[in-house]
Amino acid sequence: MLTHSVPAPRWIARVLVLTCAFASVSSAQDSLTDRYRDDAGRILGAALVDTHGWEKLEHLTTVIGHRLSGSKGLENAIDWALGEMKAEGLTCYRQPTMVPHWVRGKESAELVEPVQRSVAMLGLGGSVGTPPAGITAPVIVVRDFDELDALGRAGVEGKIVVYAVDWEGYGRTVRYRVGGASRAAKLGAVAVLVRSATGSSLHTPHTGTLRYDDDAPRIPAAAITVEDALWMRRTQVLGRAMRVTLRMGAQTFEDAPSANVVAEIRGSELPDEVVVMGGHFDSWDVGQGAHDDGAPCMAAWEALTILHRLGLQPRRTLRVVLWTAEENSGAGADAYRESIGEDASSHVAAIEMDGGCERPIGFGFTLASEEGADGATKDEANGRARKLLEEIAAFFEPIDAAAIRDGGGGADIGPLMRDGVPGMSLNTVGEHYFDWHHTHADTLDKIEPTDFRRAVALFAVMGYVLADMPETLAVR
Amino acid sequence: MLTHSVPAPRWIARVLVLTCAFASVSSAQDSLTDRYRDDAGRILGAALVDTHGWEKLEHLTTVIGHRLSGSKGLENAIDWALGEMKAEGLTCYRQPTMVPHWVRGKESAELVEPVQRSVAMLGLGGSVGTPPAGITAPVIVVRDFDELDALGRAGVEGKIVVYAVDWEGYGRTVRYRVGGASRAAKLGAVAVLVRSATGSSLHTPHTGTLRYDDDAPRIPAAAITVEDALWMRRTQVLGRAMRVTLRMGAQTFEDAPSANVVAEIRGSELPDEVVVMGGHFDSWDVGQGAHDDGAPCMAAWEALTILHRLGLQPRRTLRVVLWTAEENSGAGADAYRESIGEDASSHVAAIEMDGGCERPIGFGFTLASEEGADGATKDEANGRARKLLEEIAAFFEPIDAAAIRDGGGGADIGPLMRDGVPGMSLNTVGEHYFDWHHTHADTLDKIEPTDFRRAVALFAVMGYVLADMPETLAVR
Repeated sequence: MLTHSVPAPRWIARVLVLTCAFASVSSAQDSLTDRYRDDAGRILGAALVDTHGWEKLEHLTTVIGHRLSGSKGLENAIDWALGEMKAEGLTCYRQPTMVPHWVRGKESAELVEPVQRSVAMLGLGGSVGTPPAGITAPVIVVRDFDELDALGRAGVEGKIVVYAVDWEGYGRTVRYRVGGASRAAKLGAVAVLVRSATGSSLHTPHTGTLRYDDDAPRIPAAAITVEDALWMRRTQVLGRAMRVTLRMGAQTFEDAPSANVVAEIRGSELPDEVVVMGGHFDSWDVGQGAHDDGAPCMAAWEALTILHRLGLQPRRTLRVVLWTAEENSGAGADAYRESIGEDASSHVAAIEMDGGCERPIGFGFTLASEEGADGATKDEANGRARKLLEEIAAFFEPIDAAAIRDGGGGADIGPLMRDGVPGMSLNTVGEHYFDWHHTHADTLDKIEPTDFRRAVALFAVMGYVLADMPETLAVR
Repeated sequence: MLTHSVPAPRWIARVLVLTCAFASVSSAQDSLTDRYRDDAGRILGAALVDTHGWEKLEHLTTVIGHRLSGSKGLENAIDWALGEMKAEGLTCYRQPTMVPHWVRGKESAELVEPVQRSVAMLGLGGSVGTPPAGITAPVIVVRDFDELDALGRAGVEGKIVVYAVDWEGYGRTVRYRVGGASRAAKLGAVAVLVRSATGSSLHTPHTGTLRYDDDAPRIPAAAITVEDALWMRRTQVLGRAMRVTLRMGAQTFEDAPSANVVAEIRGSELPDEVVVMGGHFDSWDVGQGAHDDGAPCMAAWEALTILHRLGLQPRRTLRVVLWTAEENSGAGADAYRESIGEDASSHVAAIEMDGGCERPIGFGFTLASEEGADGATKDEANGRARKLLEEIAAFFEPIDAAAIRDGGGGADIGPLMRDGVPGMSLNTVGEHYFDWHHTHADTLDKIEPTDFRRAVALFAVMGYVLADMPETLAVR
């Protein structure tokens, strides 16, 4: 008799593992793909043939239209959504908060030299207006902040500064929209016109918010088209003087009442643990707020509706929030964060979709805590979370949306993430989002119904499994 | 001694052919590629590093701007071009003609029901205006002429017809812009709004000409954006009534004096035989007329300038024409046709570029006559012409522009082609042309300088060889 042990052939080990996997589907060893296969199939099937979500999106964009904070449009949308949610049998409520109330008013820009013609523009959100007669001043074109600084007060004072900057992607180019007014005002500029933050233009101005520094005079600021910014740049190079008359009736009123829209399926076992998902319900006051962020809101909502209709109640609470006033303050995000109390650990995950509703490709994720409570390093915790998400995302392979990427989140879930809640973004191919972003062209016709259905499917399956699975993304 | 002949080895035959080719470059057996290699190299080299043409295009688009027939802009452009051509040492002249004089005036469209908002629009060229107070009427949306006809007078009378048609390519979709007003007027419509003839929109209306039938009341007509056309379609499906106020100050005045710009290098041996090439110098009264048709005009002109600078004088006359008033009448094309007398056989070829200045890919060609004078069938004549063109186009292989396709021509060379002149178009990839066509977005920033240089090269080499080669495309 041999006393030393003999290793079993490798094929025996493999058979044993496979047998265990199939014999005990509820074992913690089993992948989420295995454990949730049936539920995911029901959800996917329902989402991919759904028409009800698109009808809601059609109503939102076509009947209600754009929804700037402080506007009747936004409040109409909130009332409508709560009414519909109730009719669908969802638990839902209004979460009140005050929001900025800026009104564009009548506005125009007119070139008066070297030729007379109108210049397409959109005032920037939060901008002060001009006197009723407008501001008429010479134009000085700069390509970046360095050129502005090099000009100094002598070159800028009394002028309208035109930021005819190059497109370096949204993140870099948008700096001129956000901070350009105060930078120029400190040198004595009387107004600024900023190249729209887009890489692609059909004579389309893009609005968006600006930020005034406390130590600079507040001067009017508007976006102009790429075409006119580049025309002005060339005209200045050719040595031709330009003058513009800018008229903006913009006004900021007292903050207005608004609300987040909240709907949820209460958890069956751990109702105080929450997975929250959604988008922002407000938009700029142009177009229909279809990609930004109507379709994502409707997709998250319809995901919940479908789960409710299928009678699927996860162990934790799955909550949809349509945040208010993301575009110009984040008031809705702050109100939500406050509503859950000081300790954010009730929230096991937050998912936001705010990059338009082109074809979904999967999710990005960010684990906020540096390390797991069990002493795992950040890399280890990340690896575990990624593995779980990949097991869920496997369900999205047939619709080519199974990509799990490092880095995800969003403005509305930012306050949660800062307090340790794992954050995720529902990602798309993002090919044309910034072509439409904050313009009259952000309209329903830019959305493929099939892409919308895919987003519904991703929200529904991911939200359900995250809310139901015994594991969580972050070890606390 | 063997009495039957022994065939020479094949390599001997090959050596003989090659020797002949190099020894006798002017032999009619040699390809045009061989015969014009040196000249083509000089021309290509000069064109591909040229900056002077771009400077002219920059002046045209940035300083002069758009150039509607009857406008000061067009006449400024004509004066400037003739002055510059003279300064370049080109033989050039003004070829006067009268042109339509339509002026857009102040215009707007306002939705007054179910919500109040402005609707982006551009009146169609040649449209009548509205009374000063505008026309306010209910909207009826149709998807095509069949739907219009099915509605009949009962459904259309007193209404503003909106053609919210699908995009079926320019050729099919533009029918609604050209003929939609009269079709609707015959059923009692008071105005029409037409979906812009484009497949891609960022809330960008596209103007263009319309044609009134003699047997229909003339009603105002304007283009609206794809976004609004589709919004109106959805709104009607949702059962919501719409009303619009349309205000158009459009007026048609007496025809105005204008001119074709003609420049040429007189032929050294056959000065009365002509190769003519160019584009139309006028544009719509929006944007800068950069792609349509400023850049092609400047490319043809600069091609001639380069040949002149290189001292290359072809055997025949090579002529550039910048035709006036293509957009709304073809007056310039007719004036040119008339100027050459009844018999068009003096013209051995005509090349037009009027599809924008994206990346060139080669030429299209059409032999107008049914058969050659030598009794060749059309297929045989076509085959011979194609072979000649391919031999010339071989020079464009390094810039990927050697494609010779059946079918080519243009509105300005149409009268010549109808009288038997072989017609060619300088073709581009044509990916985005109709995105910009007849809009405020047809601006210089949409043109790649390299694409423009390639167009200069194609015009210069093709024009020179066609004007110099002993052969002609069509046997007469």
